[in-house]
Amino acid sequence: MASTSNDSLPISIQNINPKVLKCEYAVRGEIVALAQRLQEELLTNPGSRTFKEILYCNIGNPQSLGQQPITFFREVLALCDHPSILERKEVEGLFSEDAIRRASKILKQIPGKATGAYSHSQGIKGLRDAIAEGINARDGFPADPNDIFLTDGASPAVHMMMQLLISSEKDGILCPIPQYPLYSASIALHGGTLVPYYLDEASGWGLEISELNKQLESAKSKGISVRALVVINPGNPTGQVLTEENQEQIVKFCKQEGLVLLADEVYQENIYVPDKKFHSFKKISRTMGYGEKDISLVSFQSVSKGYYGECGKRGGYMEITGFSADVREQIYKVASVNLCSNITGQILASLVMNPPKDGDLIYESYRAERDGILSSLAKRAKTLEAALNSLENVTCNKAEGAMYLFPCIKLPEKAIKAAEAAKTAPDTFYCRQLLNATGIVVVPGSGFGQVPGTWHFRCTILPQEDKIPAVVSRLTDFHKAFMNEYRD
Amino acid sequence: MASTSNDSLPISIQNINPKVLKCEYAVRGEIVALAQRLQEELLTNPGSRTFKEILYCNIGNPQSLGQQPITFFREVLALCDHPSILERKEVEGLFSEDAIRRASKILKQIPGKATGAYSHSQGIKGLRDAIAEGINARDGFPADPNDIFLTDGASPAVHMMMQLLISSEKDGILCPIPQYPLYSASIALHGGTLVPYYLDEASGWGLEISELNKQLESAKSKGISVRALVVINPGNPTGQVLTEENQEQIVKFCKQEGLVLLADEVYQENIYVPDKKFHSFKKISRTMGYGEKDISLVSFQSVSKGYYGECGKRGGYMEITGFSADVREQIYKVASVNLCSNITGQILASLVMNPPKDGDLIYESYRAERDGILSSLAKRAKTLEAALNSLENVTCNKAEGAMYLFPCIKLPEKAIKAAEAAKTAPDTFYCRQLLNATGIVVVPGSGFGQVPGTWHFRCTILPQEDKIPAVVSRLTDFHKAFMNEYRD
Repeated sequence: MASTSNDSLPISIQNINPKVLKCEYAVRGEIVALAQRLQEELLTNPGSRTFKEILYCNIGNPQSLGQQPITFFREVLALCDHPSILERKEVEGLFSEDAIRRASKILKQIPGKATGAYSHSQGIKGLRDAIAEGINARDGFPADPNDIFLTDGASPAVHMMMQLLISSEKDGILCPIPQYPLYSASIALHGGTLVPYYLDEASGWGLEISELNKQLESAKSKGISVRALVVINPGNPTGQVLTEENQEQIVKFCKQEGLVLLADEVYQENIYVPDKKFHSFKKISRTMGYGEKDISLVSFQSVSKGYYGECGKRGGYMEITGFSADVREQIYKVASVNLCSNITGQILASLVMNPPKDGDLIYESYRAERDGILSSLAKRAKTLEAALNSLENVTCNKAEGAMYLFPCIKLPEKAIKAAEAAKTAPDTFYCRQLLNATGIVVVPGSGFGQVPGTWHFRCTILPQEDKIPAVVSRLTDFHKAFMNEYRD
Repeated sequence: MASTSNDSLPISIQNINPKVLKCEYAVRGEIVALAQRLQEELLTNPGSRTFKEILYCNIGNPQSLGQQPITFFREVLALCDHPSILERKEVEGLFSEDAIRRASKILKQIPGKATGAYSHSQGIKGLRDAIAEGINARDGFPADPNDIFLTDGASPAVHMMMQLLISSEKDGILCPIPQYPLYSASIALHGGTLVPYYLDEASGWGLEISELNKQLESAKSKGISVRALVVINPGNPTGQVLTEENQEQIVKFCKQEGLVLLADEVYQENIYVPDKKFHSFKKISRTMGYGEKDISLVSFQSVSKGYYGECGKRGGYMEITGFSADVREQIYKVASVNLCSNITGQILASLVMNPPKDGDLIYESYRAERDGILSSLAKRAKTLEAALNSLENVTCNKAEGAMYLFPCIKLPEKAIKAAEAAKTAPDTFYCRQLLNATGIVVVPGSGFGQVPGTWHFRCTILPQEDKIPAVVSRLTDFHKAFMNEYRD
């Protein structure tokens, strides 16, 4: 219950940490707050709107829209949560043989099978071994379990690195624009400076080294010491998948300029086009012959994305390579202050990096679930992209990967004026009208950053297939009506 | 794999955030690092020491030492992790009726039963309702689910409040000495100033308002603006339980001085003496007639402690009252940046605040598990306290609550000189020798703070009952030998 008159309370908006005030996080911002109010309205008064439900396309949260979890993963988690049933005969009727075997193996790696105990600050050693094996199998280069820090999703790992790298506003972090706003929020909370580099929309959100150089020089001329480069691959919100050549250029640039490469690789399993493939920055660096002493690299991974989409489990890890022993000790210390990440998330991270293999009894059913989700995501991406591109004044790049489309809308002058009159940004104005008319929740481009004067929104590709036709027709009808109202 | 030569790497100990360097966290500090090395040594060479195992008494981690989880809680978690088995007949053979009913109820509160989806940033509404009911039942005063923020254990909640309250080193936080080092670490990481107030060991770690006043005035005279008072009740590492009168004085003090009261109440279920009872600071405030507009209060709770001891699940919450709507919006925003806490931990937090009730089929077996753990903890506390008090030069207050003993050792001059020669603090010197001789891991008092010139260590009461005699005899033998070597 929030106090309304706060004259006598010690804490006010005037005397809290200004870094907190500065931080913004649009994917759960004002449009989402409005959506939550509309949802409550629909509950109490179901006929009050022309739509029956709110469709949350604001955030990459697949299971909230009906995606089913991978059975094998959930079987293992349930068994690890309640290990004593493994000793009961009845368990065989309820759980697959492979799940029972995997859960037993994991429990053996935990002293006393104590899934309720704090683990090592970096995570349970046996699970880190499994993740290191998974990275090795993915990249063809060995990974060291001591390089892996398990975290509650990828976000705390990003915060940890920002905390390490940022001492003051003189420390800069190169971030793509558009970017996933965790980065801008974390940089703001830690008091650093976001040094933007623009992705080129015309070339499918291309990442140009000339742009990196230009922005780096510009930051330097302002006295900013740039510490790191953030790359999100596959891109969020932009959906592009980098080519190997581009990745090599990026690695070279970081090495030359003495930047830590912060590689957001949480969408590594989400690729929808046959001509693109995910390559980790570690694999690229090692292939180039760069080792521990050449480049400082952090790779972030999460159980929230991929075909698994287990956002609520808050599992993830970072793999850090190319840091000196004394700096790593500091990272370990900061991890220790929070004791450890949740064990369920730790177990799940080991599973997604070591899923069932060909030959396992459960493999075929696991593969069917996985491929079903991925091919459906690819289909939905294509349908929505085509629908967006068919709209007047809208252009939309392909979602080669990740979970989003980020269309550009050329808004008429009249709409921009109306937004101004409503004291809001033109893209927010559009998104709010879309929500009010259709119940579809998307996030204005300004939440991610965009070239000044251009307007976008981010829309996930996550509504289930049977809902896509309705999304398309509602969006199309709304857009036509909007243009009819505001066309110059 | 840490790089050894780091000349070419961009990040060094000289150019990372100095706040990270300043942060210390002794409960996973150098003594624990030594213990981990000894454990590896014992694995490769089992006969190398006079002891067979390392006994981790450094941290409140009950299940790592053999405490069994509460069956009902784990049944519910397993069912929520894999809801589809609820539709199978066989589930009734493996799970209790109450657990099936509770899991079904919880799943109904989650849209689409999606335990793999991100929740509301504060946590699933139905779970917050259940927690609010539990608080109401505990205190006899209503709680509002909108005041509850579910978090991954209590630590992130503490960090969130420090982040909000601390803008610079001019912002001070009153903290008990000795204190649980999460507080000193978090204040250091956020760049604030810890304003210490000393608990009075002679009066059983009493909290004197005169001491609070003295330290507050002293901080003010140095230009520090004190924002909040941290109280840990029951005490960590000190184990005292505050009296109601003392709590009333503390509430009055905070109200008078305009301080936020940060109440660490994670040991609310851990009370071992019949003449003491836990009272939440919210209950005390409301009983005094102080409402939303009178006092800003944050209560931290965790699933890691109590009789449940579910550290690895990383569940917890904070209840915030007496904050204005605009400040709460800022707290909500910061919570949103990390999306939500893990759902398993959220569910468990709702369970510990709403355990089975008299009349439930499972109540008797639940109660037997709960009371068995709590009475055993009380017994262990008493045995260890007596053993410590029987040692030469050692005095130890009663553990009225929590999970620790914090004995004072009067170290001989000769030992202090030997520590000096070994370039270490005298209490660390003692703890290291104890570990090397017995395998028992405790934390030096300097990690928590202590009156200068006094020496302590923190030892958990968590080794299982059958191990307590060995702990006592090993500790006693070591101490005698230590005193014989160093007695002045």
